[in-house]
This record gives sequence, structure tokens and C-alpha cells, in this order.
Amino acid sequence: MAEEKVWTAALLVIGDEILSGRTQDKNISQVAVWLNVQGIRLEEVRVVPDHQARIADGVNALRTAYDYVFTTGGIGPTHDDITVDSIAAAFGVPVIVHPKARQILEDYYVTRGGVSEARLRMARVPEGAELIPNPTSGAPGVKMENVYIMAGVPSIAAAMLQALDGKLEGGRPVLSATVGAYAPESDVADLLRETEETHTGVAIGSYPFFKEGRYGANFVVRSDDGDLVDRTSADLQRRLSEAGYEPYPGGL
Amino acid sequence: MAEEKVWTAALLVIGDEILSGRTQDKNISQVAVWLNVQGIRLEEVRVVPDHQARIADGVNALRTAYDYVFTTGGIGPTHDDITVDSIAAAFGVPVIVHPKARQILEDYYVTRGGVSEARLRMARVPEGAELIPNPTSGAPGVKMENVYIMAGVPSIAAAMLQALDGKLEGGRPVLSATVGAYAPESDVADLLRETEETHTGVAIGSYPFFKEGRYGANFVVRSDDGDLVDRTSADLQRRLSEAGYEPYPGGL
Repeated sequence: MAEEKVWTAALLVIGDEILSGRTQDKNISQVAVWLNVQGIRLEEVRVVPDHQARIADGVNALRTAYDYVFTTGGIGPTHDDITVDSIAAAFGVPVIVHPKARQILEDYYVTRGGVSEARLRMARVPEGAELIPNPTSGAPGVKMENVYIMAGVPSIAAAMLQALDGKLEGGRPVLSATVGAYAPESDVADLLRETEETHTGVAIGSYPFFKEGRYGANFVVRSDDGDLVDRTSADLQRRLSEAGYEPYPGGL
Repeated sequence: MAEEKVWTAALLVIGDEILSGRTQDKNISQVAVWLNVQGIRLEEVRVVPDHQARIADGVNALRTAYDYVFTTGGIGPTHDDITVDSIAAAFGVPVIVHPKARQILEDYYVTRGGVSEARLRMARVPEGAELIPNPTSGAPGVKMENVYIMAGVPSIAAAMLQALDGKLEGGRPVLSATVGAYAPESDVADLLRETEETHTGVAIGSYPFFKEGRYGANFVVRSDDGDLVDRTSADLQRRLSEAGYEPYPGGL
């Protein structure tokens, strides 16, 4: 079997509110899950403040290292929304008002008080960019080459991801199975390593828990080969059972 | 007034389980909030996979750019726990078994089945490192120069942070006040920018919401000068009220 290309992505989360701890990020996990379905592997996340040079440096570092870059945050109408300007600077292009985005905003706000200068900020894009439809709240996202600029509000980001469903080239999704057992992970470290070594091409992660007074762990078997995942998790289950560990049914 | 040093930190979250979307990260916000209390500003977060070179590169990039680096994840007893090895590689030093960590584990496991080779993995540190006490589960964290290596399980990471309370040099904590209003943020963009410009030294963030059928936003005023925060939020409240917007009491 020829080596298949692994498609990779990074996420740049833009926002003082995440770095101050005020807001619990919800975009990392939803972008991660969505990318996995597209067969694209999320390889890195960075969180940076609302600061033009930091955003531009982040985008430039990531867009050359990965196939796709997603950003969340900083595309609203207020003075602290500087993502578009920062990404235009990263690409060395001016910011323009996108005619279609302007039209979308004019239509959206016709029954909502009309477009103002502030609202028109949301029609600004780096020159050469395309739009990402936003079915929920008018203001579109922006695609600049391999950089996908999305809203920070998780429900709006989700709608933009949905609009991109199936539109990005990817490989085979990574599949996983979870085997849970009342086994302290330090007792089964060798068993896990041996299982992983026996089945070339899988990765086994170990996530300990302490529930109702008992130690245990969920072991997550991952691969893009579904049969391999099934074989490995069956083997792992057998080995844990032979070693006398009670299954924990609460795995994913 | 002389310019005070701003103490900065970065967080490196290590874990395939975050990048796959399986686990919702909880360490970013708790580290952020804790750092703020210490008067240290969280300037950047990176999430990287369980991969030695990626961890080492991340640590090396961050430890030279910021005063402090915190890492979470990958310090347990199993084969996928490679944080200590990766950070030793980043510093170009060997991994040794720390005598005091070994003693802590021997004491901890004396009533829990004894130390095994896997459990002793948790006594391994980069040569030259010190320990971070872990009151909850035996295995200590590790401090290597300005890098603080902590557990990924949020409750254990929290206990390690608590053990470090007040021990890191920092500046003045950033203070904040939240002013909420039923004001669509695009309608008050100018008002916000003018308020920020009037009060040199504050930053105002705008976080929109849609609640019970009404648009509004929380405006967060931030500065390390408490009086300035108070003056600015009072002024912002007055301006919003004069412009006819109803206060939203649900701010922080």
C-alpha cells in the first residue's frame, strides 16, 4: 500500500479573554473533532493575545508548517477585533471591503437598524480572500489561501465549520476505540507498551481516572485503519482480562 | 512612576487527547487565572502532540521568550508519558532518577502495592531539576530552570499550582471590571473606542451575547491600576446609560 498523504492543520485561537482565564475555550475541541471527520489531523494549537504582530507571526509560522490553518476570534465590529488586519499584514496585502460581504451585511441588517460603519468593519477582508458562509449571524468568515478565519463565538464557529463540511481535501479519518478497565495505569504500563508494539501502526493513549473509590484508566486505541483498531482493542481487552482486571464499561 | 517589569508566562499543553478533541482542556483557564493572581501575564499557549521533538521545540521556543513556562500532561507512568525525556532533550541534559522523588514514591506506594518499574518512571527528571510538591497523588511535578512541569489531570495540576502559590516573582495582578449592557456591540463600537482612548492604560474587551431574545455584550475593562479600572468602568457605564442602553446585570 502506498504511503498516503497525511493532511495537517493548526488552530490559532485569538483572544485576551482566553489568556486571562475569563472565558473557557470551546473551539479547540470542536475544531479538533470536525477536522478529524474531514480526515485532517490537528497538529498544533496556539493561543495568542489581541495583538497584531503576535497574530501575524502566529499565522505566518503555522500556514507554512501545515496544510490548513484555522483561526477563531477577533472578527467582530469593535476596536479590539483586529484579526483581519493582522492576517492581511501577515500576507503583506491591504485590507479591502469585500463587495459580497458588504451585500450580505446590508441584507442582514436591513431589518436590524441598517449597516453602520462599525458593522461594515465585518465586510473587511485581506485582498484576495474569499468568504466562508455564516448561516447564523450575517457576518461571514474569511478564507485567505490556506487560512480559514472564523468567529470566536463557539456556535457561530460551528456554523462556519458546517458550511465547510466536505469542502477541504483530507485523508482517512483517524478512528479510535476505547477500552476501559479498573487497572491502575502504572500496573499495566508494560502490557500497554507490548500491545502497542505488537500492532504496528496504532497508538495507544492511557487516561487514568479515580471513580467511586477505585483507580482505573481508559485506553484509547487510534489508527486510520479500522480493522487494526478493532484487532488491537480486542487484543488489549483479552490481555487485561487475562491479567485479572475488571472491565470498566464507561469508555467513550 | 518608573515602568514596572511585566512578568510573562507561556503554557505548553502536551497531549494527543486534546488535539483529537477527545478531552476538553481545563488547564488553560485554571493556569491563566492562577498566574493572574501571581501578577504574571499568560502571553501564549501552545498545544502539541505526545511527540518528543515537538515538545522539545515548543519548550525551547517558549522558555527563551517568556519569564516562565508551564507544561501540563505526559508525566504519568505509561509509555505515552514522554514529557520529562523531551524536556531533558530540550535542555541537552540526561534524565536521572531524583532521589527525593524516588523516596516520595516509595513512601506513597508502600500501602498501595509497592513501587514498580513503571511507577519509578515518575521519579525521573532532567538532570539539575527540582521537585514541585504534589499533595494529592504522590508523583511530584518538576521544575527545570524556568520550566514548570505539571500533571495533565486538572485536579492534580491545581494541587501543584497551589504548592507554588506566592513562590514565583511577579508584578501587579491585572484587575478587571465587567460592564454589561443590552447594547449590540456593533452599535457601541465608537463609544467603546472613545472610552478606551480617554483612559490611557486600560484595555476594553467586548464579548457579545444573545440572551432571552435580546442582543447585548459584556465589556471588560482591564488594567493593573485598580483606580483606573474603577474610573473607566464608571465612565463607560455613564456613557452607555446616556446613550439609552439598559444595563445587563449578569456581568462577571
